[in-house]
Amino acid sequence: MKSFRVSVHIVPRKGLLDPQGKAVADALHTLGFSAVRDVHVGRHIVIETAAADAAAAERAVREMCARLLANPVTEDFEIAGVAGA
Amino acid sequence: MKSFRVSVHIVPRKGLLDPQGKAVADALHTLGFSAVRDVHVGRHIVIETAAADAAAAERAVREMCARLLANPVTEDFEIAGVAGA
Repeated sequence: MKSFRVSVHIVPRKGLLDPQGKAVADALHTLGFSAVRDVHVGRHIVIETAAADAAAAERAVREMCARLLANPVTEDFEIAGVAGA
Repeated sequence: MKSFRVSVHIVPRKGLLDPQGKAVADALHTLGFSAVRDVHVGRHIVIETAAADAAAAERAVREMCARLLANPVTEDFEIAGVAGA
């Protein structure tokens, strides 16, 4: 078993309201960043896990996302990277 | 002015407590993912902004992070990517 660091992005589904992103965009406009058009806020999760190989680590993290980390009704997730640690 | 999508990761500073990551790791253990060693939870922010070029877009987003998005006492940020949109 080797150790892997798997990064995941969990983001609001496209087309759903993203009130946190809207709030950040408004705050940036208030600060004078008028070129900002849109902001999306999601979570960036890094999981250190033991696995036989990188493919097994990614598979395990996909299952963690489906069972715990992402809300399947409102969120999408994508594996951003798998690195040996 | 072209449109760019800049992704940023905002993560707890190394060495600081990450109670949210600890809670996620404990929940994953409870669900049977016993191979998980550590979890870090941060934010993944995507900013769509107009700028003259990619370097200017990245510079603007770094300033946004320093002024609003990241707490300099407890968080670090890194630009994860800049793409034309």
